[in-house]
Amino acid sequence: MCGIVGYIGMRNACPILLEGLHKLEYRGYDSAGVALITNTGNLRIYKAKGKVADLESVAADKDCSGNIGIAHTRWATHGVPSEANSHPHVSQSGDITLVHNGIIENYATLKEQLIEKGYTFKSETDTEVLVQLIQYTKDSVQACNLAMAVRLALKKVIGAYAIVVIDRQEPEKLVCARKSSPLAIGVTEENKELFIASDASPIAAYTKQIIYLNDDEIAVCERDKDIQVFNLDNKRISPEVKEVDIDLNMLSKDNFDHFMLKEIFDQPNVLRDCMRGRIINAPYSRPWSPQQKGKNTDSLSVILSAVTLHRRELLRARRIIILSCGTSWHAGLIGKQLIEHFCKLPVEVAYASEFRYSDSVIEPDDVVMAISQSGETADTMAAMEMAKKRNALVFGIVNAVGSGISRISDTGVYIHVGPEIGVASTKAFTGQVTVLVMLALALGMAKGTVSQEEYNTVLHELVMIPDKIQKVLEQNDKIKDIAKKYIHSKNFLYLGRGYNYPVALEGALKLKEISYIHAEGYPAAEMKHGPIALIDSEMPVVFLATHHQLYQKIVSNMQEVISRNGKILAIVTEGDEQVKAMVDETIEVPPTIACLAPLLSVIPLQLLSYHVAVAKGLNVDQPRNLAKSVTVE
Amino acid sequence: MCGIVGYIGMRNACPILLEGLHKLEYRGYDSAGVALITNTGNLRIYKAKGKVADLESVAADKDCSGNIGIAHTRWATHGVPSEANSHPHVSQSGDITLVHNGIIENYATLKEQLIEKGYTFKSETDTEVLVQLIQYTKDSVQACNLAMAVRLALKKVIGAYAIVVIDRQEPEKLVCARKSSPLAIGVTEENKELFIASDASPIAAYTKQIIYLNDDEIAVCERDKDIQVFNLDNKRISPEVKEVDIDLNMLSKDNFDHFMLKEIFDQPNVLRDCMRGRIINAPYSRPWSPQQKGKNTDSLSVILSAVTLHRRELLRARRIIILSCGTSWHAGLIGKQLIEHFCKLPVEVAYASEFRYSDSVIEPDDVVMAISQSGETADTMAAMEMAKKRNALVFGIVNAVGSGISRISDTGVYIHVGPEIGVASTKAFTGQVTVLVMLALALGMAKGTVSQEEYNTVLHELVMIPDKIQKVLEQNDKIKDIAKKYIHSKNFLYLGRGYNYPVALEGALKLKEISYIHAEGYPAAEMKHGPIALIDSEMPVVFLATHHQLYQKIVSNMQEVISRNGKILAIVTEGDEQVKAMVDETIEVPPTIACLAPLLSVIPLQLLSYHVAVAKGLNVDQPRNLAKSVTVE
Repeated sequence: MCGIVGYIGMRNACPILLEGLHKLEYRGYDSAGVALITNTGNLRIYKAKGKVADLESVAADKDCSGNIGIAHTRWATHGVPSEANSHPHVSQSGDITLVHNGIIENYATLKEQLIEKGYTFKSETDTEVLVQLIQYTKDSVQACNLAMAVRLALKKVIGAYAIVVIDRQEPEKLVCARKSSPLAIGVTEENKELFIASDASPIAAYTKQIIYLNDDEIAVCERDKDIQVFNLDNKRISPEVKEVDIDLNMLSKDNFDHFMLKEIFDQPNVLRDCMRGRIINAPYSRPWSPQQKGKNTDSLSVILSAVTLHRRELLRARRIIILSCGTSWHAGLIGKQLIEHFCKLPVEVAYASEFRYSDSVIEPDDVVMAISQSGETADTMAAMEMAKKRNALVFGIVNAVGSGISRISDTGVYIHVGPEIGVASTKAFTGQVTVLVMLALALGMAKGTVSQEEYNTVLHELVMIPDKIQKVLEQNDKIKDIAKKYIHSKNFLYLGRGYNYPVALEGALKLKEISYIHAEGYPAAEMKHGPIALIDSEMPVVFLATHHQLYQKIVSNMQEVISRNGKILAIVTEGDEQVKAMVDETIEVPPTIACLAPLLSVIPLQLLSYHVAVAKGLNVDQPRNLAKSVTVE
Repeated sequence: MCGIVGYIGMRNACPILLEGLHKLEYRGYDSAGVALITNTGNLRIYKAKGKVADLESVAADKDCSGNIGIAHTRWATHGVPSEANSHPHVSQSGDITLVHNGIIENYATLKEQLIEKGYTFKSETDTEVLVQLIQYTKDSVQACNLAMAVRLALKKVIGAYAIVVIDRQEPEKLVCARKSSPLAIGVTEENKELFIASDASPIAAYTKQIIYLNDDEIAVCERDKDIQVFNLDNKRISPEVKEVDIDLNMLSKDNFDHFMLKEIFDQPNVLRDCMRGRIINAPYSRPWSPQQKGKNTDSLSVILSAVTLHRRELLRARRIIILSCGTSWHAGLIGKQLIEHFCKLPVEVAYASEFRYSDSVIEPDDVVMAISQSGETADTMAAMEMAKKRNALVFGIVNAVGSGISRISDTGVYIHVGPEIGVASTKAFTGQVTVLVMLALALGMAKGTVSQEEYNTVLHELVMIPDKIQKVLEQNDKIKDIAKKYIHSKNFLYLGRGYNYPVALEGALKLKEISYIHAEGYPAAEMKHGPIALIDSEMPVVFLATHHQLYQKIVSNMQEVISRNGKILAIVTEGDEQVKAMVDETIEVPPTIACLAPLLSVIPLQLLSYHVAVAKGLNVDQPRNLAKSVTVE
C-alpha cells in the first residue's frame, strides 16, 4: 500500500515527483525516496525514514537535476521502516532502480536463487529481490533491453505489484507494469511529458488524459513517443485513454485542522450529493437552499440506473452476497438488514479476504455486491473476480470513479462523496449506508416487497438526514469535552443492537484507528457470553441507545454494566430522560426511523474518536501503521 | 459421563451411597437413583429427576435398610432426564439391577433380539438393554451365576461401560466391570467393607487402598472375601492394590486445580466419546489401546441417525442457518466452512440474539441449526421457536440431553462430552466442532458432494485427533511458562485465517472470560483495515499459523507486525523453523488437514488463557460477572 510516482519530460523531475508523493501520502508514509537520472547521466537516490517532508530535507542540498525520475512513499510490508528498506531499490551494478507497490510472495525463493548466482542484498525487502532479478535477466539474456528484462522477470514473480523502473544504461525511458496494484499514466500532447502514479491525483494538475494500466500489462514511456503497452507474453495492446475530472480543491483541508474533521463536517453536503439526481423531487434535487426545506416530499421516489438497467437479474436473485473489508464491511452489515427487510432476500456479508479463499457457494442467480471506498481494495477485487467467474451479477458500491472495482463490476452505484483523504473513513461510511438505503428501497419497490407507505416514510426521513446530521455536528464542543475525560482509558466496549450493532463496530474501529485505544464492538446481547467479564470501573462502555425497537433491552444491558461499576457513555434520542438519569454521559441525536439510525448515531462516535486522538496529541490524518487504500492482500 | 457408586459391608449402605453421589455430582446431575437389598431381602429402588438432593427427599420416608446397594447420578445420553430413564435399571424378573456409566453402541440390535424373545422395556435407555441381556443370559445358560452372566453378556456388547450389578438371588455380592469408563474399588482389612465408585472421591474417606479395574475386567466383590478379578475370557487376574493419597477437595477435579483444566485435559477422551458409535470401524469402537492405532481405517464411515432419519429434508435444503451465542457461535463459524465445503450449501451464521429480532428471511426449505452447550440458552431457544413457526427443519447440536433446545428440535446430534463445569467452555467447543465435521461428512456423502477419497481422508484424520490433542497437552508446562510472560499485558490481538479464523475469536474470548484481558480476534487480513494501528511493543499478537493453504500470507502478516515492533506468539505446525526464527514464542501442534486444524490449534489457546488467569491469581472456574448457562436474554 505504497504510493509511487514517475516522471519523464522537459521539466526538472524532482519537484514534480515530491509534490506527487505529498498527494499520495495517504497511501503510506513511513519512509520515502526518490531516484533521478541527473543531467550528467548519473543515478542519484535519496531516501529518508519518515514522511515526504523528511525526504525533502534530505534532498535539499543534493544534486536534484534531471528530467527523469521515480519516487515512492512507503507503507512497510517486508522489513521495518528504515532507510535501507525504503524505495527506490537499486540493482547490484547500480544501473537499474525501481519503485514498487505490492508484495512479491515468492521473494524468498527468488532471493536464494540470486544469492547462489553471487548477488548480495542490502535490505530485507521483497522489492530489492525484484530489481536484482531484472538486472540478472538483462545481463544473462542475449540482446535484452530493460523492457524485455522487466517482462521476463515478471513472468517469474508470484504476487502483486505496480512498478516503475529506470535504467542508467537506457536513460530516456520509464518502464512500468502492474498486477493487482493500481497504476495510472498521464499522457500529454505529443507526449512531451509523461506522468505515472498510483492514482490520478498527482497527475491531474498537469493533464486530464489518463491511461489506467490493466493487470499483466507493461508500458514503455518515452518522451515525444507513443506509449507502447504489451502483456507478459509480449503481445502489443492498444491502451485506452480516459478523460478524468478531479476537483483539486477537494483535496485541501479548507479551514479544518485535519482532513478527518473536514470530512466529518462534510457529511451533510456530501450525502446530499450522494442522493442528488437519485431521489427525484427531493428538495435538493435542485441546489439546496433553506427556502426549499418545506417542500412537500410525499411524491419522492428513488431511481438508480443500476436497478433500472439490471432489473431482470436483480429480480431473479435468490441471494445477495456483500463483500467488503474494514469500515465498508460495517456498512455491509447494515446493508444486509436493509435488504432483508425491504426486499425479503437473504443476504450474506463476508470479509472479502476470507471469502476469496473460501469454498463459499456462489450460484449464477446470486448477486455479489462489493463495497469499497477506494475501489482498489485488493481482497475485495479478488473476491469479485471469483464471483464473476461463477457468473453472478457483480455490483460495485465505490467512491473512486474509474477505480479497479468500478471497472470490473457489471454495474453499481457510486457513493459520490468526494475523495476521502483522512485514513479513518467517515463520509464514505455514511455515503455507503445512504446508497444501501436507496438501493434497498429501489429494489424493494421493483420486487413489490415494500409498501408504498413505508417507501414514502423512509424517503421522507432520508432526505431530512443531512439536516439532522448538522444538528449532531453542532454538539462538537460538547463531544470534545467528553472526549477529554477518556484519553487515559486503555480499553472501550461499544454495544448496540439491530441497525445500531454495526455502528458499535464502526465506532470501535474509529477509536482503534486514530486513538490507538483498544475498542471492541459487540451486539449488546452477546455481552453476557464473555465480554462482560472485562467490565469494571476502568472499562468505559459506549451504548447505542436510540429510541427504537430494542431500547428497553439495551436499558437492561446498561443496568448490568452499572451494577458492575462500569462507566457508560450513551448515544440517545433527543429528550431521553430515562437513560440520562442512569449513566455518566449522554449525547443526543435527533429522532429518526430505525433503519436510518446509523446515519445519525455514527456521527458522535466519529467525533469522539477524533477528539480523543487530538487530545492525546496523535496524528489523526496519518495514524501509525495504517494506509488509506489497502491495495495489497 | 455419569457417576456410579456401590457398597457392601456391615454399615447401612444408603447414607454411604448418597454421600458418594454428592461427590460425583460433577459428572452429571439430571437425575439420580439408588437400589438396596433391604434387611428383609427385598430389592428397593428409589429414583428422582433432578439432583441428588431430590433423591434424598424421595428416599427420606422409605425403607432404606440393608448393607448392600448401588447408586447413580445421571448425565443423559440416551433418553431425556426422567424417572423412567434414570438408573438403577432392573431386569424384567425384578431380580437383577445395575448402574451404568458409558454408552452401549449396539443397544438397538440387542434390544430387537430381546424383544423377539419376549422382553419388554420401560425406558429409552441403552442401559436397560444391558440389564435385560444379563438376566436373559443367566436364565438361558445352564448353571450360570451372576458373574458368569455379566461376563457372557458383556462379550456381546460393543461400547463403553463401567457397571455395578446386584442380584436379589445372590444378595451377598456386587459384580462390577469396566471398559473405557473408569471404575475404582476401595478395599479394607479382611474386606469387611467394599466400596465401588467412578473415581476414588466417594471412597477415600473410608480407605486409601484402591484397585483400579482395567478394561475388560470383571470383579466379584463379597464381604470378608478376597476380590476375584477375571477377564472376559474368564482368565483370573491378580489385581494390584494401590495406596492412594488424595486431597478430598480435589477429587471431583481428578487432581486438577480447576474444572477448566480438567476439562481441557479431558478432551482426548471425551472426543472419543463424541465419535463413539458414530464413526463405524473406528479403532476406539473397541477399547482404545495403543496397539490398535495402526488398524486400517480405510473403511471408516460416519453414521448419524439425524441424517438418516431426516435425509429427505436435509437433501432438499437450499440453505442452512446456524444460530448460536458466544463460544458456540465460533463453532458455528467453523461449521459454515465445513458445510459449504463438503455439502456445497450456503450457510449463514447468526447471533441468536440478533436473529430473533431481525427480518431475516427463513424459507420452509431452510434448515436451522442451533448450537448450545447447555441447550438452555434463552436467545437461541427464542430464535429457534421463530424458525419453527416458519416451518424450517430445526436441528439441535447440544451437550445436555433432554435440555430445552433438544426438546424443541425436530432432530439433532448430541455432542456427548459430559457435563462442563468450568464457566469458560473448552471441551464443549471441540465437541461441537467434532459433531459439525461428522455432520458435514454425513450430509456431504448423502448429497454426493464429497468424494469418497476426501471422505476417507477426513475420517482417517479425525479419529487420530484425540491422540494429537494429547501431544499438545504434553506441552502444558511450556505453555505455562509462556503465559507467565504475558500476565501484565492489557491487550491482545488474535489473528487467523480460514478454519483458524474462528479459533482466533475463540482464543480471544477465553482470555477475556477468565483473565479479564481485553483480547480481540480478527481474520488476519483485516488487520490492515484498522487493528494494525494498535500494534506496538505493548500489544502481543497471537497468530494461528499452522501449515495450511494461507500460511505464506499469514507469514507476511507477521512481517508487518514485526516491522512495527509487535510481540508475536505463534501456533505452528510441528517442525516449522521459518516462523520459529521470526517470532518471540511458538507452540507446536501436530500436522493435520485444514478442516480439522481448529481441534488442535484451540488447545494451546485454552491452556494459555488458563495459565494467564492462574498466574494473575484469578478464580478460573467462577470468573467475575459470568454464568455458565445464559438462560436469560
